[in-house]
Amino acid sequence: MFEERVPISVSEAVQRVMQYTKKGKIEYIDIEEARGRYLGEAVYADHNIPPFDRTPLDGFAIRSEDTSNASSNRPVHLEVIETVGAGNMVKQPVKPGQAVRVMTGTIMPEDCDAIAMFELTKEFDKDGKTWIEIKRSFKKGDFVSFEGEETKKGERLLDAGTFIHAGVVAVLATFGYNKVPVVKKPVIGIYATGTELLEVEEELVPGKIRNSNAYMIKTQVQQAGANAVYYGQLVDDFDHCYHAVENALDQVDALITTGGVSVGDFDYLPEIYQKLGANVLFNKIAMRPGSVTTVAEKEGKMFFGLSGNPSACFVGFELYTKPWIKTYLHSPKPYLECVKGTLTHDFPKPNPFTRFIRGKIGFNRGIVTSSPVGMDKSQVVTSLAHSDVLIALPGGSRGYKKGDEVDMLLLFREGTSEPFKDPTKLRKTENR
Amino acid sequence: MFEERVPISVSEAVQRVMQYTKKGKIEYIDIEEARGRYLGEAVYADHNIPPFDRTPLDGFAIRSEDTSNASSNRPVHLEVIETVGAGNMVKQPVKPGQAVRVMTGTIMPEDCDAIAMFELTKEFDKDGKTWIEIKRSFKKGDFVSFEGEETKKGERLLDAGTFIHAGVVAVLATFGYNKVPVVKKPVIGIYATGTELLEVEEELVPGKIRNSNAYMIKTQVQQAGANAVYYGQLVDDFDHCYHAVENALDQVDALITTGGVSVGDFDYLPEIYQKLGANVLFNKIAMRPGSVTTVAEKEGKMFFGLSGNPSACFVGFELYTKPWIKTYLHSPKPYLECVKGTLTHDFPKPNPFTRFIRGKIGFNRGIVTSSPVGMDKSQVVTSLAHSDVLIALPGGSRGYKKGDEVDMLLLFREGTSEPFKDPTKLRKTENR
Repeated sequence: MFEERVPISVSEAVQRVMQYTKKGKIEYIDIEEARGRYLGEAVYADHNIPPFDRTPLDGFAIRSEDTSNASSNRPVHLEVIETVGAGNMVKQPVKPGQAVRVMTGTIMPEDCDAIAMFELTKEFDKDGKTWIEIKRSFKKGDFVSFEGEETKKGERLLDAGTFIHAGVVAVLATFGYNKVPVVKKPVIGIYATGTELLEVEEELVPGKIRNSNAYMIKTQVQQAGANAVYYGQLVDDFDHCYHAVENALDQVDALITTGGVSVGDFDYLPEIYQKLGANVLFNKIAMRPGSVTTVAEKEGKMFFGLSGNPSACFVGFELYTKPWIKTYLHSPKPYLECVKGTLTHDFPKPNPFTRFIRGKIGFNRGIVTSSPVGMDKSQVVTSLAHSDVLIALPGGSRGYKKGDEVDMLLLFREGTSEPFKDPTKLRKTENR
Repeated sequence: MFEERVPISVSEAVQRVMQYTKKGKIEYIDIEEARGRYLGEAVYADHNIPPFDRTPLDGFAIRSEDTSNASSNRPVHLEVIETVGAGNMVKQPVKPGQAVRVMTGTIMPEDCDAIAMFELTKEFDKDGKTWIEIKRSFKKGDFVSFEGEETKKGERLLDAGTFIHAGVVAVLATFGYNKVPVVKKPVIGIYATGTELLEVEEELVPGKIRNSNAYMIKTQVQQAGANAVYYGQLVDDFDHCYHAVENALDQVDALITTGGVSVGDFDYLPEIYQKLGANVLFNKIAMRPGSVTTVAEKEGKMFFGLSGNPSACFVGFELYTKPWIKTYLHSPKPYLECVKGTLTHDFPKPNPFTRFIRGKIGFNRGIVTSSPVGMDKSQVVTSLAHSDVLIALPGGSRGYKKGDEVDMLLLFREGTSEPFKDPTKLRKTENR
């Protein structure tokens, strides 16, 4: 009934999970559907940017030699033979003594080699023709944007595993990716366990609570870039549970269970893993909350047995499941980024274990700050709504003071290639 | 042809746009569809959390009076009459000298008033019954989670305008919001203008470039939480443009145009605004890039005339359009959050105007850093893919040095209620 559980460190647990990553296949989707997906291949420039010599501003394309002797005292007059907008080409040769009015982005007329912006010219009409006066000399190339000066054809622009947001879409569109190679989303199944659970639409009854974890985890899975399938609740019957898990395995890349992994009487998961022949990577971690998080693996499919406690469930997903999903999505930055911050409040409660506290990052005149959110009750679900970091506190015999420097894991950033390291010691900093 | 344009400051431009905000209506959607939407109403607790007195850990529910004289020398023995899991109720009265084995989350048996965790007890069998030994005294309430101690019924949990992510979903599920009141998304139309533009699937031809702005802006609109409708390109004909804009107005809450707002020959937009009787809020801003950004308004519908230059277009959206959209979505934090950071590199090019440079925020042992991304060519689209901030540099006659403190607008954060203030002076900081 009480199976032996040997706790390992968080970083060791992460490392064990990451031994079983795999990378998803590629599919091509319309650029208009690409937002929020991950690039399946690196993207290269298929042409130079600018793609041709062009004018970067509104002005006149001129032959620089015409202005070689121009000055305030000796202005030159050039005949404006045509006006050309971006997307159009000059229709006639530009001869010595002539100029072309050009708009931003216009291809350079072949006979011209410099741009005189409007501010440096004076336009006038004479004999039914338009002229400009120029009072300075221009050199070949002045104010011209040259082909390839921003980006050379063949240049690597974006890596595989890049998360696709607006700036990435701009690059894809510029280089003609109307179909975008993205990674197929992994399918992550979710089962809730716990006879105390009601579905969200059910009325509360004594002894029961609503099943918030399944909805939360489903959203976390989607936020990580995967497809989530909620299979409902497992009921309190071994054979039922076993067959439910076995059947789900055929349909998913990974299966998350929430609840039922506490040291309780009604936890069938260890027995299910055993009967399936799954390889249990660990079943206890030296962390709070979530010490009884269990991860197992069978033939490349993962089982993430997360706690039924909402905070522990949330933390377990972020630490162990998310890096696995992001690696599947080819991301080279699967881990939560860890940054230092200065505590804005005392956090007096000591704990012998590494802890993950819900918190908010702040910025105070260039200094990163860290504020715990709500109480440190692992059941407090409401503070999850207000957190954007997990504060990682090393275990120890004392609490923490305002001004102490702590580690924070950023929940809403792109991520990092650096795996999580357990915080081991506290560096005291002056109060700022 | 060259209309008069009087530049205003960025903060003044933002303020003028925000005089014409409106708030969207509410619709109810399934909790499983709520991710990424904005709450249309505040959310209150419909019940206490915990909803009943319960056990926060695995252990034994006891009558504390039974242990009042217990010590190492005088242990007490209690008979374990039943085992109860979360979601179930004890089936019989618990009499003096008796205890109940309970799992985490179990409702407290009515006759018990304290929890003795497993670690503080020793279990043994005698006479066919199960007993525990306890060597310390417990007080009434010890280790019990009391009803309402985390959250009281009626407490305000989430504000209207809250962006819905996994932690918010957890709260909504806990409190039974299977239908969630969210703000209806505004519809934002998009027209691209510019005869130099090819669609993304077209082959490049001399003098033309691909239309990246429309796809980028569409994605920015979606990221801001609105629906985007791309109407295609406006062609170079006044009547066509006028009718296209007029028709689109009936279908949208705001209309974005990109391109065609430079001081060029082929820009019909000022004339279109005039013929529509729209109120032009401004048509020139003292900023780079994007100085010719134009915003107009007619009967509550907005026209955002953004530059054709990709960076200027991107910046114009983030500064002017996004706060309008987020206010529509009831967000109390519509503006980009501005934080200080220390430049990691020299940025030598001076410019008389307020500039917005694509950059990355970094964290170096608790200090916020700021790194420009790519060159400061306003056409450089590729650097948009790698930026997570806009560095806001005040205009001036000199460039900036490594170690200078600069303002950064965070592109991927929740936002702030503080409107943008033009950076006016540079605070020199020591190099760190």
